[in-house]
Amino acid sequence: MFESAELGHTVEDAKYEKEASKLRAELLEAQYELLSDKSFPVIVLVNGVDGAGKGETVNLLNEWLDPRHVRTRAFGPPTESERLRPEMWRFWRSLPPKGKIGVLFGSWYTNPILGRVLDGMSDGKLAADLDRVRTFEQMLVDDGAVLVKLWFHLSKKTQKKRLVSLEKDKLTRWRVTPQDWKNFARYDRFRRVSEHVLHETSTGAAPWLVIDGSNANYRALAVGRALLAAIKARLGAAREAAKQNGKANGKKNGASAMPPAAVSMLRTLDTAGLLKNLPFEERLSKQKYEVKIVKAQAKLGRLSRSPKMKKRAVVVVFEGMDAAGKGGAIRRITQAVDARHYSVIPIAAPTDEERAQPYLWRFWRHLPRLGQFAIFDRSWYGRVLVERVEGFATENAWSRAYHEINAFEEELADSGIVILKFWLAITKEEQMKRFKEREATRHKQFKITAEDWRNRRKWDDYVVAASDMIARTSTSYAPWTVLEANDKHLARVRAIDTLNARLDDALRG
Amino acid sequence: MFESAELGHTVEDAKYEKEASKLRAELLEAQYELLSDKSFPVIVLVNGVDGAGKGETVNLLNEWLDPRHVRTRAFGPPTESERLRPEMWRFWRSLPPKGKIGVLFGSWYTNPILGRVLDGMSDGKLAADLDRVRTFEQMLVDDGAVLVKLWFHLSKKTQKKRLVSLEKDKLTRWRVTPQDWKNFARYDRFRRVSEHVLHETSTGAAPWLVIDGSNANYRALAVGRALLAAIKARLGAAREAAKQNGKANGKKNGASAMPPAAVSMLRTLDTAGLLKNLPFEERLSKQKYEVKIVKAQAKLGRLSRSPKMKKRAVVVVFEGMDAAGKGGAIRRITQAVDARHYSVIPIAAPTDEERAQPYLWRFWRHLPRLGQFAIFDRSWYGRVLVERVEGFATENAWSRAYHEINAFEEELADSGIVILKFWLAITKEEQMKRFKEREATRHKQFKITAEDWRNRRKWDDYVVAASDMIARTSTSYAPWTVLEANDKHLARVRAIDTLNARLDDALRG
Repeated sequence: MFESAELGHTVEDAKYEKEASKLRAELLEAQYELLSDKSFPVIVLVNGVDGAGKGETVNLLNEWLDPRHVRTRAFGPPTESERLRPEMWRFWRSLPPKGKIGVLFGSWYTNPILGRVLDGMSDGKLAADLDRVRTFEQMLVDDGAVLVKLWFHLSKKTQKKRLVSLEKDKLTRWRVTPQDWKNFARYDRFRRVSEHVLHETSTGAAPWLVIDGSNANYRALAVGRALLAAIKARLGAAREAAKQNGKANGKKNGASAMPPAAVSMLRTLDTAGLLKNLPFEERLSKQKYEVKIVKAQAKLGRLSRSPKMKKRAVVVVFEGMDAAGKGGAIRRITQAVDARHYSVIPIAAPTDEERAQPYLWRFWRHLPRLGQFAIFDRSWYGRVLVERVEGFATENAWSRAYHEINAFEEELADSGIVILKFWLAITKEEQMKRFKEREATRHKQFKITAEDWRNRRKWDDYVVAASDMIARTSTSYAPWTVLEANDKHLARVRAIDTLNARLDDALRG
Repeated sequence: MFESAELGHTVEDAKYEKEASKLRAELLEAQYELLSDKSFPVIVLVNGVDGAGKGETVNLLNEWLDPRHVRTRAFGPPTESERLRPEMWRFWRSLPPKGKIGVLFGSWYTNPILGRVLDGMSDGKLAADLDRVRTFEQMLVDDGAVLVKLWFHLSKKTQKKRLVSLEKDKLTRWRVTPQDWKNFARYDRFRRVSEHVLHETSTGAAPWLVIDGSNANYRALAVGRALLAAIKARLGAAREAAKQNGKANGKKNGASAMPPAAVSMLRTLDTAGLLKNLPFEERLSKQKYEVKIVKAQAKLGRLSRSPKMKKRAVVVVFEGMDAAGKGGAIRRITQAVDARHYSVIPIAAPTDEERAQPYLWRFWRHLPRLGQFAIFDRSWYGRVLVERVEGFATENAWSRAYHEINAFEEELADSGIVILKFWLAITKEEQMKRFKEREATRHKQFKITAEDWRNRRKWDDYVVAASDMIARTSTSYAPWTVLEANDKHLARVRAIDTLNARLDDALRG
């Protein structure tokens, strides 16, 4: 993989000046077209050997492009707030919005490679990490992103020469750190591991480009051309797709301008029965409820204050039909938890900063740090519920969301987050009763809107969507719990009991 | 101040039920009017004695209001990322956007009070902290916010009774922590200090409301009524102002719906000469430049890698007329700094999340943590430059911005941030030369837009605004440096030299 990058490519200064000037103009044009098109981001990963021109490339991109629309982010050792969250959290936070170019100096490849070379990471862990990386990049590409993965290479001999010459000049000496020499001592091992990683992650949608870093002129032109080609290809595809679709998909969420991938999933699993025939008639008297809820809350109070919670976080998702009692159940939980340790995140329409990012971005930004509870009043499941039913998302987008959500939740679970997902199930009759009650009570009227009545008309579609959702996203690490909620008391007690049981388990383990 | 809250107010259950039901409905109506009006936020501070119902009040507000539009945030000990930034950073991050209600459980009052009671904070430091708090709250109110400051009080006897009764029941025992008892042992001291703090910060614009916390019914009604009255008064004033102004101010930034405060400042200082008669003809040959810039960068490289940088951060602001050479100067700085240690923040139009917050919010979110450089390509000075000249901000808003900005920069300086502000000064002739050059060079054309030509027509207005700005905001902790920039080489070298000198000083000190 690296051999072709050791041929010692060079470009004469005169030729470079001429080419560079033309290339810069074309890159700027492409950048401005991207900016006005605003339908996808460009993500440039800058990785490779020390001394091969990574830093110079970051500077170059900021000089050639309009830097006001370039987001550059370099990654050092994780900060505390990064360490207390899933590994990918800091990369999600650094994604450029649609229309912009993000330059990531160091990336999600740095840790797997360093871990393998320096810390003896196992084969299995490396394979799992790379699998996660592929899933993540596939998600970005499916969402429309252009991913330009650059690997800057130097032969062993050239790298040594380069480090020595930087060190000799007292004006550039500060650029060479002891770590650079330590890494150099492991050149062969680095090379072997990198080659493996690049090989494993060079996919059709997101291939690696290995660049000979020995000559600055050659390197600059190679980077510029690769970036230009990638943006132009994508803009061309977008124009083509727009022409063919007559912009039909334009307004839907998650609609990428790419030719839509074949939808590979079955239309509907046979899940229709999942939410029917529940024992809706069960009841818990007010008297018994008041005893049970206080007991459950006391237990939750103790568990949530356990010292072991420092290594855990909790994500609780509440979904359910309108008027199923999500808010009331959430309040019974928060009453028991120290207010400094939880946040309730009601999910409504995305802001424009959120709209300019991949779908899951707005949930990543609300993830709890270790020690904290995050309770979602509606959640990322909106994509496969309301967005599916109402047609806000393309079939392509909501179909692939099941997989993306499972991968997302697995990442959370792996980082120490306990995930609970509740579907509050009520009958259509019960909903009607509650709607009418709300309309009749002055301080509850705000809870009932025309939208609720509209949604009710699509009751059966929602049941199908919810059943599919539960079937496709109930995993060992993030199982769904269906709560019969015709009796609010019962649902509240069971929600806390379920939470307590999971938490007890997790804190014991 | 606290005596009236020790009278043991109670409200019978029957009366409470009736009143509460009416109050809830009215609160919801007010909340929805606030939400659709969207011109100001409501900030509720929940502070006071342990056991006086602070947590219950937070729950109550989330139960009575539509919780999807309430942002509740409780403050514990600061996290690492909070400790590495100015003290107020975490409160800025927690401000509710316009149209929403923010409930802050613990606030900017917690540290001054605890510091004084527990850690022997000096009179002088406390006075300075309270002064800062008053400035901050005045800024919020000037920006239109409704500030409801609630202090929950219990007499010594009642507090003891309350803690004992919570502890006796094994279901509520977890609520009482050893810290609560420790605090109780210092009740008298707490009371004295709190009374002083409340007295010092009960201003006309943001008065304290002391609430007797001994009876849950009374407490709930008192909170609900206070909140309702505050929101309604503000909505009424907004309607009144809109009627009188015919919405004339409606579109301007920082226009609050309040009756405009008298603008107390002089129109223009006699600063017109400040930016004229600079030695614009000075030149630095390319040959000398190349020697000097590399030396300056090497020094910056060393300084920025100093271990002492761990306790410092750097904020560099670049302002100047269009084509003054901001981008080029910034790149010469970033070339010398490790890419993991700086970020460049180009300031463009605010996003909708930013528009819904006080003006300085979008700069607070980009503040560097200790150890980091943040370089602003244009900055918070936009308010007193482009927004003043173009009339985007009301005179009221840009006039008070000088003071707000000085207070803001003082906070940064106090937290260990070294602040440099550069005005790149060019002559009108030089600008014309550069505009024409840009139009003639293909890869520079993007830098010149119709807006640049429009701004140029207002050259003299910008000179007046810039001169005022420099005169009013050049402080000992954040001085302006005017750089003659007709010669780009000279300006770049001097910018880095100035930065090096300040940094050298700061790291020595």
